[in-house]
Amino acid sequence: MKLLTFSTNNKPLRLGILVDENTIVDPQEAYIELLNQSGQQRATEIATALLPANPTEFIANGNLALKTAKEAVSYALENAAQSSALYKKENVQIGAPVLKPNKIICVGLNYKNHILEMKRDFPVHPVIFAKFATAISGPNDTFPLNSKLTKKLDYEAELAFVIGKEGKDIPYEDALDFVFGYTVANDITARDMQKRTIQWLQGKTLDKSLPLGPVLVTKDEIPDPHCLDISLTVNDEVRQKSNTEQLLFNINHLVEFLSGIVTLEPGDIILTGTPGGVGEAQNQFLKHGDKVKVEISGIGAIETTIMEVTES
Amino acid sequence: MKLLTFSTNNKPLRLGILVDENTIVDPQEAYIELLNQSGQQRATEIATALLPANPTEFIANGNLALKTAKEAVSYALENAAQSSALYKKENVQIGAPVLKPNKIICVGLNYKNHILEMKRDFPVHPVIFAKFATAISGPNDTFPLNSKLTKKLDYEAELAFVIGKEGKDIPYEDALDFVFGYTVANDITARDMQKRTIQWLQGKTLDKSLPLGPVLVTKDEIPDPHCLDISLTVNDEVRQKSNTEQLLFNINHLVEFLSGIVTLEPGDIILTGTPGGVGEAQNQFLKHGDKVKVEISGIGAIETTIMEVTES
Repeated sequence: MKLLTFSTNNKPLRLGILVDENTIVDPQEAYIELLNQSGQQRATEIATALLPANPTEFIANGNLALKTAKEAVSYALENAAQSSALYKKENVQIGAPVLKPNKIICVGLNYKNHILEMKRDFPVHPVIFAKFATAISGPNDTFPLNSKLTKKLDYEAELAFVIGKEGKDIPYEDALDFVFGYTVANDITARDMQKRTIQWLQGKTLDKSLPLGPVLVTKDEIPDPHCLDISLTVNDEVRQKSNTEQLLFNINHLVEFLSGIVTLEPGDIILTGTPGGVGEAQNQFLKHGDKVKVEISGIGAIETTIMEVTES
Repeated sequence: MKLLTFSTNNKPLRLGILVDENTIVDPQEAYIELLNQSGQQRATEIATALLPANPTEFIANGNLALKTAKEAVSYALENAAQSSALYKKENVQIGAPVLKPNKIICVGLNYKNHILEMKRDFPVHPVIFAKFATAISGPNDTFPLNSKLTKKLDYEAELAFVIGKEGKDIPYEDALDFVFGYTVANDITARDMQKRTIQWLQGKTLDKSLPLGPVLVTKDEIPDPHCLDISLTVNDEVRQKSNTEQLLFNINHLVEFLSGIVTLEPGDIILTGTPGGVGEAQNQFLKHGDKVKVEISGIGAIETTIMEVTES
């Protein structure tokens, strides 16, 4: 199943399911129709509880939400002519597939060729840092570049995974049981701000510096997350190109490691690190008008346009 | 006003107001009584919306919540004999005054004598890093020490301030308008985990590593946050002793700096850094049974007992 958030007429973003390239079903709305049709009382309350519009709450509902959503989607597609739960993608705004997670954990230095280009040592333990939820933005949003604040804006293509259920001290072999699904991320980074102190956070968490999407693919559709092609282009020029088989610390390892430190919660987003080819290694940074596209096989592509916001 | 969270019979923690050393008023419950007494319909719905039990939502309601809470508290105290909204502190469990903020931002190296003892350079820009909300714990909770994970558990006494309203690019002189209040924090740190990679996060965000409280004091009661005594003892031995006048980057500066990077939101917690005297500088770490107490003048004291959790 492919989850996203969408909005019509500037209403708040709500969870949707992408059923084909151009069709979104609102599972909550579809389930209300299904319940109403069967004469169920309190259909709205029941659908809201089982299929919340907020993706973090939907994810927390786990298999019950997924099972119910499947029923609802089937019903909407079978009754497409009468259903109000179907939307054409071109008529709605698309947001990030997770909006307000409790945690965003980023793994640094997790592809061999990126470590070499950043002139860092190979880490014995994963290097982790945070981004705040205020950084999350939609898969095709613009990024507001304030060039008074940073002269060295850079990209980082990353596979992100989302936690599906709460866990602490999760063993390596059970790790994927705690994963809900996968999405594409760009860890947009202000290199000058990242490096002006000994901690990276301030260069990592600018507002809108985490484009996510276009969908969150549930794990049943990606049986092996360690063989996905990942690439990044700037204005159609290939800058990063790798495969998740190149991860130093794989997803099982990361879940085991992170859950040894903190309790992982449904909706938590974990970025697995970026391959070689970042702009900094070529002393080439993002500027007004640049289009940065990140693509991962089996998930899709996100594209961010850089937009200068300072008045000259 | 002094805010906290409390719970009876292991029910979820909810917002309370400490009215004297031993008395807590539940403002929502008190307001329901006030509305009922005046014949208002839908008292529970109105009180729940105006005075949410969740502190982050209460803070987001701003001055309207504070004004309504004051009314509710007065009513409960005037009708103490009949009110069910009053609790004796000794009969309830006390939690942290903020439970699930969107962000916890920590400032490192912000007292001169701590920078010297850590053998660091004086920073030109504030050094910032994150803790996750899973780290928050109550003012008198125990801390679960897993000595298989860390051999170098340390304390850091800190003044924390809480954001009251959303802001971006806030000027220095307006900064305190965006502050809701102040509380006492202990930034419990696993030094070995902090330093085993180049980013501190993994040593900073162990579950329960952020005791907070005992109350969140609204800013009207602390007109100048830059003249507060701060101290920390381990088993009654003084280890840290300073005053917030020693902050390198004061609260105005931090609000201006941080809001230049990220949008600050109601309930966000910002830890202002710790003075000299941390255990690491004396190669002396926390062990099972230690009682760590942090006290700040005008706010109060929190005390954490270290409890080993690994079986020997």
